[in-house]
Amino acid sequence: MSLELIPIILGVIGLVIAVLIFAMLLKMPAGTGKVKEIADDIHNGAMVFMKREYTILVGFVVVLFIALYVGFETWHTSASFLTGAVCSGVAGYFGMFSATKANVRTTVSANEKGAASALSVAFYGGSIMGLTVAAMGLLGLGSLYYLFGSTEHVHAIHGFGMGASIVALFSRVGGGIFTKSADVGADLVGKIEAGIPEDDPRNPGVIADNVGDNVGDVAGMGSDIFESYCGSMIACIAIASTMTTGTIAIMGGTQSYLMFLPLGLASVGLICSILGIFIVKMFSNKPADVALRAGTIGAALLFILAAYVVIHKLGISVNVWWSVVAGAVGGIIIGLVTEYYTGGSPVRKLAKSGETGSATVMISGLALGMESVVIPVVTLAAIILITSLLLPEGAGIYGVGIAAVGMLATVGITMAIDAYGPVADNAGGIAEMAGLGAETRAITDGLDEVGNTTAAIGKGFAIGAAGLAALALIAAFIETISVSVPNFSLDIGNPKVLMGMFLGGIFPFLVSAMTMRAVGDAAFDLIKEIRRQFKEIPGLMEGTAKPDSNKCVDIATTAALKRMIAPGLLAVLSPVFIGFVLGAAALGGMLGGALITCVLMALMMANAGGAWDNAKKYVEKGNFGGKGTDTHAAVVVGDTVGDPFKDTSGPAMNILINVMAIVSLVIAPLLAANPNGIFG
Amino acid sequence: MSLELIPIILGVIGLVIAVLIFAMLLKMPAGTGKVKEIADDIHNGAMVFMKREYTILVGFVVVLFIALYVGFETWHTSASFLTGAVCSGVAGYFGMFSATKANVRTTVSANEKGAASALSVAFYGGSIMGLTVAAMGLLGLGSLYYLFGSTEHVHAIHGFGMGASIVALFSRVGGGIFTKSADVGADLVGKIEAGIPEDDPRNPGVIADNVGDNVGDVAGMGSDIFESYCGSMIACIAIASTMTTGTIAIMGGTQSYLMFLPLGLASVGLICSILGIFIVKMFSNKPADVALRAGTIGAALLFILAAYVVIHKLGISVNVWWSVVAGAVGGIIIGLVTEYYTGGSPVRKLAKSGETGSATVMISGLALGMESVVIPVVTLAAIILITSLLLPEGAGIYGVGIAAVGMLATVGITMAIDAYGPVADNAGGIAEMAGLGAETRAITDGLDEVGNTTAAIGKGFAIGAAGLAALALIAAFIETISVSVPNFSLDIGNPKVLMGMFLGGIFPFLVSAMTMRAVGDAAFDLIKEIRRQFKEIPGLMEGTAKPDSNKCVDIATTAALKRMIAPGLLAVLSPVFIGFVLGAAALGGMLGGALITCVLMALMMANAGGAWDNAKKYVEKGNFGGKGTDTHAAVVVGDTVGDPFKDTSGPAMNILINVMAIVSLVIAPLLAANPNGIFG
Repeated sequence: MSLELIPIILGVIGLVIAVLIFAMLLKMPAGTGKVKEIADDIHNGAMVFMKREYTILVGFVVVLFIALYVGFETWHTSASFLTGAVCSGVAGYFGMFSATKANVRTTVSANEKGAASALSVAFYGGSIMGLTVAAMGLLGLGSLYYLFGSTEHVHAIHGFGMGASIVALFSRVGGGIFTKSADVGADLVGKIEAGIPEDDPRNPGVIADNVGDNVGDVAGMGSDIFESYCGSMIACIAIASTMTTGTIAIMGGTQSYLMFLPLGLASVGLICSILGIFIVKMFSNKPADVALRAGTIGAALLFILAAYVVIHKLGISVNVWWSVVAGAVGGIIIGLVTEYYTGGSPVRKLAKSGETGSATVMISGLALGMESVVIPVVTLAAIILITSLLLPEGAGIYGVGIAAVGMLATVGITMAIDAYGPVADNAGGIAEMAGLGAETRAITDGLDEVGNTTAAIGKGFAIGAAGLAALALIAAFIETISVSVPNFSLDIGNPKVLMGMFLGGIFPFLVSAMTMRAVGDAAFDLIKEIRRQFKEIPGLMEGTAKPDSNKCVDIATTAALKRMIAPGLLAVLSPVFIGFVLGAAALGGMLGGALITCVLMALMMANAGGAWDNAKKYVEKGNFGGKGTDTHAAVVVGDTVGDPFKDTSGPAMNILINVMAIVSLVIAPLLAANPNGIFG
Repeated sequence: MSLELIPIILGVIGLVIAVLIFAMLLKMPAGTGKVKEIADDIHNGAMVFMKREYTILVGFVVVLFIALYVGFETWHTSASFLTGAVCSGVAGYFGMFSATKANVRTTVSANEKGAASALSVAFYGGSIMGLTVAAMGLLGLGSLYYLFGSTEHVHAIHGFGMGASIVALFSRVGGGIFTKSADVGADLVGKIEAGIPEDDPRNPGVIADNVGDNVGDVAGMGSDIFESYCGSMIACIAIASTMTTGTIAIMGGTQSYLMFLPLGLASVGLICSILGIFIVKMFSNKPADVALRAGTIGAALLFILAAYVVIHKLGISVNVWWSVVAGAVGGIIIGLVTEYYTGGSPVRKLAKSGETGSATVMISGLALGMESVVIPVVTLAAIILITSLLLPEGAGIYGVGIAAVGMLATVGITMAIDAYGPVADNAGGIAEMAGLGAETRAITDGLDEVGNTTAAIGKGFAIGAAGLAALALIAAFIETISVSVPNFSLDIGNPKVLMGMFLGGIFPFLVSAMTMRAVGDAAFDLIKEIRRQFKEIPGLMEGTAKPDSNKCVDIATTAALKRMIAPGLLAVLSPVFIGFVLGAAALGGMLGGALITCVLMALMMANAGGAWDNAKKYVEKGNFGGKGTDTHAAVVVGDTVGDPFKDTSGPAMNILINVMAIVSLVIAPLLAANPNGIFG
């Protein structure tokens, strides 16, 4: 059997398993009465978001499809682009559909069968997302590689990554704005103006708030990881395709083996993820954190072993395997550091700073976020150093790409655990809203708490993976230009590169500013609608009429998607503008400057935001006086600032750098024809 | 007469004028009774700070002096280093001595003679600082150039910049921690715990607070500008010294003319600054802002004309003159953008966001700060583009250095106007503390308000200048290595460079975190002392005993200097460590990554901090309800967070990147011998 068929076959197998789990999930009891009603509202709300989002997205995709067709004068890149967008879209849609079916089943299971069963159900919900992301990536990219991998259209594959990035842009940035504006809007009108409790079903914005968790943390995170997963593989393929025969001789294997390797690693990674899912199931009567950890670590260890076998069988140097190990270990380190800064003693100190008011909470939190970048960035630097020492000159950057693949190969299980969090969170919300017993709530609370930790680790992991993937894509961009433009180099001493680096540093700051402001603006649109409903729907406050939750979801969606267009266009168009006007060297510099700044800002914002969130929770548990004290008021300010930090602007950084990098890689063949821009 | 003598002669002339102004200042009435007492306390407090600071500084200088002697095995670099440290130290000492003599004379003048006279006196105080900075730079650097410029020890001149940087590190970072910790400490114990008004002479910390303004805004800002001023000249000399004959032929002039040019430009810049000071004096019966603007713009225009003459006379290409123009205009643009973001409609919007609480003030302020980086950074990129288009390949970066010199050549007047601000501020403080009439206070308030605007512009200007100076120093570093290591390039595609870029991005974040925390820690030390004095000094609260203000100043100084050692060592040692361990390419990458990140963070923090400060003042003028409202409380939180942002961590970025760049340039000849580090 042809080697190139393996990723496709495994993609299909992964999808089949995901569908089987989905079928199993659907058969589980989905609750009745109020439980069912609330769950249906959340599910339908999420679908409203998806429908509206995909409607706008289709327009974008069509425009870019045509632009790529016109630019390249062949259909190959356009077709790849469309495939990437469809694959990412399908993964996001199916994953979120499943998550919003799994949440209520988790609630029911917690209510009727207890903790172990609830853990299984919630994890099944996440697993569908995890497996779909991995399977759609392998299926889509594997098919394109099968078609184009050994033809002159090999660079058309880059279009797949661009398609994935466009969907990620909408899902992650749009979703991020949606989720936080719904959160703020619902709380402000409901809790403060109408004086009703949080998560009260009379509040028209509450469903939007719960939808937001799925939109942001399931679909958004999934598209983010999907983009990095595919981006890292595409980068490796691109770098290997430009390798010299001399380098290949030292690397071992053949050029096509080196090009195939990322897909091969991801294929065995998917198998290991499936095994990991079984391990979690086996351990489901243990505490949730033990079970999830057993699954992740088990899958990672199996993958590291399997990767050795794959690399050995393909005759490739064992040093490439060490790159895989560096990536896998690096991902774990970054995740653990994130966990420490958003859950360890720094959070307790941050909570204590609330005793002297909100200003010290802000200063301490910002300082914490800034400090938290150190170890993750040193880890990334170490991965770069290690791979460059292990591999021959010119291939070190291939090793960085392989390290990113190593970090992401078991995405099936890591993403499953990420998506488990919001499912458990939603399950708790449904239990609360439907007024189920304290026992049920205790179980869902327990699951949710573990979910918060895994979410923090997942966020760090996503940043690390996005950074490495973008780095590999940038390297692929340089190599692609270098093939046509001899002596092309991005020397920092070259004024154009320097200029590009300065310009690149602007975007993360500008996009952060735009997205933070967008949350406020979108929240304001939603606030107007919620106020209108409270005023105009008779019997709403008395509980005799139902609020029009879908209308709120629709308005928040429109507002969010409207406000993400400017940062989105900035991300897509800036590489095109800078590349064709200022030249390829300036574009390369821009990518370098943007990469560093994006990674730093992403880590800073995610960790500061996570720490503020948990400092608030820590005080709410009764520490430093607990709820209602001045200390609590101070840490609530931190949490409010942290919300757009960690769930909107921070994650937008991952997308921003990857969109910029993949767009640059896609236009690289066009740029190579005129690399100097209009200033010559 | 030898051309090389001109800078030295002008340096002497500048110093003589500064001393004459100082003598004139001393003859003015210095107040009596309470006015004199308070002013003496501030002056003596500032001297206590200086003494303590310089004591520790001497230790550092001695260690580095020896290290450089051992490293280079000749005395030249060590001697230059010592000269730089002494020149910067003298400028800072004399400037601050004068400023703390001018403040009280401004108060008395406002009280006895009116606004025009008070403006003159305050501006004289600032002028002494401005002229001393320019003169000491020309004298010191000019002398070294005279001695070493045409010898094989030309690179020993770099040591001068390193000496200036070490002093700047202490003055700016240590001073920044001091000023904000004194501010916070005095306010917290005095206003909140003891319930006495702000600036009450019974508070032992109030003098420290007023000393802080001089320490941070006079001495700190002066050393920062001195460092950039000398750094940009040193970079030009270094780059010109490595130019090929082919490039020189296109550039025009001779190599020694190109090396001399920055000193020549700074020399005519000093003359223009002196003329500018006369212009301000001539306009002193106009409103303060008109007079100061006339002086700055007049000096800048004169300088641009004079620069043309110098460049033409030396036979150098007119395109180099355009670089000067680009730098001078760029500096103005960056200053105006800073003024807009910290004083225009963005500030009113920020103040309005206080209506919805401190969280929205934080989010809006951070977004404002992030957005404010765009135009300044685009301006820097444009300067780089323009100079690289104007000048032949390999000399574009010389143009960047010349643009920095163009931005800084009229430092005599720009620094004078910067230092005028804190003098006016102090004058108002003395008037308030001594209970002078409302009319006097109105005059000093008017002067202070103009000072706030000039301070904002000055801060933006300092960041732009520091960024360009560092950029030129980095280019000089690359050129210096390239002379000995053929094919040395900082290709972003080289994993070592990439790794360095990632590592470089860490430092601005880490140093920001450290310095923000340092303010809190140092404030705590001071708080303990103030509490002790209130408790242990009998009759203090009743006003029958004097507080031990010097003790407070001493403690705040010790605390500040102690906490600046870690970030200081980080700045000095990291280039040495990375250069010798990871190699010259990694060090170059590190400088690139640090440069971008430092400039972005410096702009973000300075502008967010300035905007928060002015938003608070805007509310305090009665807008949105004025003092005592919830809106006011919300904007006060912003101001408190903004304090360390704009006066400690933000300015530390300027120093950080320049220290890193100059240390790298100094060790470049040693690195060139073993450019690959220990990993080969």
